[in-house]
Amino acid sequence: MRTLLVVAHPRPDSLTFAVADAFAREVERRHGPVERADLVREGFDPVLHPADEPDWSDPAKVYSAAVRAEMARIERNEATVLVFPVWWWSMPAVLKGWIDRVWNHGWAYGGRAYPHERVWMIGVAGAGAQAYRKRGYDEAIRTQLEVGVLEFCGVAERRVELLYGVTEGAEFAAAAVASAAALGASY
Amino acid sequence: MRTLLVVAHPRPDSLTFAVADAFAREVERRHGPVERADLVREGFDPVLHPADEPDWSDPAKVYSAAVRAEMARIERNEATVLVFPVWWWSMPAVLKGWIDRVWNHGWAYGGRAYPHERVWMIGVAGAGAQAYRKRGYDEAIRTQLEVGVLEFCGVAERRVELLYGVTEGAEFAAAAVASAAALGASY
Repeated sequence: MRTLLVVAHPRPDSLTFAVADAFAREVERRHGPVERADLVREGFDPVLHPADEPDWSDPAKVYSAAVRAEMARIERNEATVLVFPVWWWSMPAVLKGWIDRVWNHGWAYGGRAYPHERVWMIGVAGAGAQAYRKRGYDEAIRTQLEVGVLEFCGVAERRVELLYGVTEGAEFAAAAVASAAALGASY
Repeated sequence: MRTLLVVAHPRPDSLTFAVADAFAREVERRHGPVERADLVREGFDPVLHPADEPDWSDPAKVYSAAVRAEMARIERNEATVLVFPVWWWSMPAVLKGWIDRVWNHGWAYGGRAYPHERVWMIGVAGAGAQAYRKRGYDEAIRTQLEVGVLEFCGVAERRVELLYGVTEGAEFAAAAVASAAALGASY
């Protein structure tokens, strides 16, 4: 299975990239090739302009060249995995805008489904699982992303994994990398 | 009370701008001046680069000039109102990134609170209230934005209002504008 791995972090030396790499290494070793997309370094513009606004009356609308290039990158793969730090209990803007612009009407929903049966999201979470549960952030993330994005777009093999507590000590960061490798192995 | 009104939509002729204008007119007539911020037209870049990454060990970190300009724009006002279309059960990327970058550690949280006691968010929602309730999107939005952003940053007079169903007929769009005017009057 060919996998597009989309990473959204401003620093290649970040824990988010270490998590993405640990995941990718296991996938490549066991399950097939991984194509990496580094949205920040590639300069992806997450701001949606009218060219990429959905037209509810026209599911065949042709979107901007930048969006069509992202669609083509997805279409030449068979699965998508998003790896990102959880900022404000959701995705960084660069990844939110990738979804705003690319997962568009007539292509990912609206008489169509996202082209891949499998999409996973791996969020690197600063706070611990307890803190997420206490406020309901874990449930809110699942509702927004797993139900509101993946299920909405007809993704059958959907999974949202949060790797918790990474700002609470080096052992949690190491555990996040180990969990990512295990996720990659079980992919 | 001086209010900063932040609007996040790619088209000035959009319903989102009509909602923002209806709200602002009533506020200006009854409660004080409104300074408008049009993030898309101003070219605000929502992508966080290392210059604006929080440094957990340094709450006095000096952020980028672009972020300091946004902080100054906020600080010369006394309240903030965000008006945006709900995309994927949250904010458009341009506004998410405004929060990612500007509502930063050591300024909006982390030994500090957001400079304003009052922050309102007005989301223009395509689907109807029933659809939001059925999937729990309304609760997820409240958890992410009202608890996770506003309460987290110590905003006392916080409010998240969703104006539902605007793609379900012209009468709903008109109702959204009327609701925005009423919100402005009651501000």
